[in-house]
Amino acid sequence: MGLELYLDLMSQPCRAVYIFAKKNDIPFQLRTIELLKGQHYTDDFAQVNPLRKVPALKDGDFNLAESVAILLYLSRKYKAPDHWYPQDLQARARVDEYLSWQHTALRNCCTRAMWQKMMFPKYLGHSVPPEMLAATLAELDRCLQMLEDKFLRDQAYLTGSCISVADLVAITELMHPVSAGCKIFESRPKLEAWRQRVEAAVGEKLFQEAHAVVLKAKDMPPLMDPTLKKNLMLSLQYLLH
Amino acid sequence: MGLELYLDLMSQPCRAVYIFAKKNDIPFQLRTIELLKGQHYTDDFAQVNPLRKVPALKDGDFNLAESVAILLYLSRKYKAPDHWYPQDLQARARVDEYLSWQHTALRNCCTRAMWQKMMFPKYLGHSVPPEMLAATLAELDRCLQMLEDKFLRDQAYLTGSCISVADLVAITELMHPVSAGCKIFESRPKLEAWRQRVEAAVGEKLFQEAHAVVLKAKDMPPLMDPTLKKNLMLSLQYLLH
Repeated sequence: MGLELYLDLMSQPCRAVYIFAKKNDIPFQLRTIELLKGQHYTDDFAQVNPLRKVPALKDGDFNLAESVAILLYLSRKYKAPDHWYPQDLQARARVDEYLSWQHTALRNCCTRAMWQKMMFPKYLGHSVPPEMLAATLAELDRCLQMLEDKFLRDQAYLTGSCISVADLVAITELMHPVSAGCKIFESRPKLEAWRQRVEAAVGEKLFQEAHAVVLKAKDMPPLMDPTLKKNLMLSLQYLLH
Repeated sequence: MGLELYLDLMSQPCRAVYIFAKKNDIPFQLRTIELLKGQHYTDDFAQVNPLRKVPALKDGDFNLAESVAILLYLSRKYKAPDHWYPQDLQARARVDEYLSWQHTALRNCCTRAMWQKMMFPKYLGHSVPPEMLAATLAELDRCLQMLEDKFLRDQAYLTGSCISVADLVAITELMHPVSAGCKIFESRPKLEAWRQRVEAAVGEKLFQEAHAVVLKAKDMPPLMDPTLKKNLMLSLQYLLH
């Protein structure tokens, strides 16, 4: 059995891995794990990733979790063009710096913004206090400012003049609040120009394909299954602060 | 000017960077930034790291933030022994996987456990609801279980048979709740044996030196300066949930 990628394109890091693998013509079997259906709680999936998170990779008898580790593994194993994860000492450190920063910054507030603005009220029927959402959106705004000031600056891409895995990790993250109707690019022309460059570099077709599921999430009917609803509410409680 | 490392040994990732640099005889100038005195808010430090976080690295005109990026930069630039960040594809992926996982898992709950159990009540005179602390300690326990089941398993070190940067990042994290009196190793003989191996591999003297400040934190007199207290409470609010 060749490379298998366990993904749910509703998840930001899954989209980054999907785009990277497709863009670099890496052959893989797509194993879809629908988080909203609780498919990551099955015993079969725990064999692949005991952390019960997607993305997860299976390459023969080698299993790997965590999107950043998966992106770097794929870039090394399949010798992706250097710009994705440059050999140059300082250029690579810039990519590592972004990949490390985003975990507790952009990743955190993009997920909360999307769930608080859209998924909790519309899909789970759970209202979110307006002041909680306002605080989350304010934090998202601060994170976007850091993204511009500390990372993008006057460069074409986040870590330099070429696209890297950092740009994929960032753009897939930002499309999360976008899917919930946040107009994050409208008042940020520099970030909007970057978004367009990334989309062009990835290719519009692949970009749209990777984001089709999340961009349609706003039209999903409310969840009716009470057990699944209860389980989701429990496991997503941490997004309500 | 050679390599400068901006550190506060009260911070877990700073201790990991400090131990790595010292253990590998990497020559550096130590620039101490005392977080509890708000020294990361100065304009001078913002020049080094606009994110206003430690650790930060300055190597000539190259500045770098984020402990994981700094550890990998140092291991590459100074050609540290391979075991710290192995060349082997799968072994390296294991280290990347841990470094990625810990940001939102162990790092998060070790920081909250230490602040909620010790620093908020004793240093800032801010009482923490017992149920909040209990929830944090329960989460810490779940994270420690994952650390054992998913990472350590029956290996000598977290990512294999040799010590890697993952072990440094993990042990410095765990010493945070230990400094607050959490007995995290007592009921976990496997983890305790690993701790002893890491301490021996690092060298007891260096290990103690790196942890002297945090292990003495419990004896600090309460903070009296009202302005500093207010600023710290504001910036640490995110640890109270």
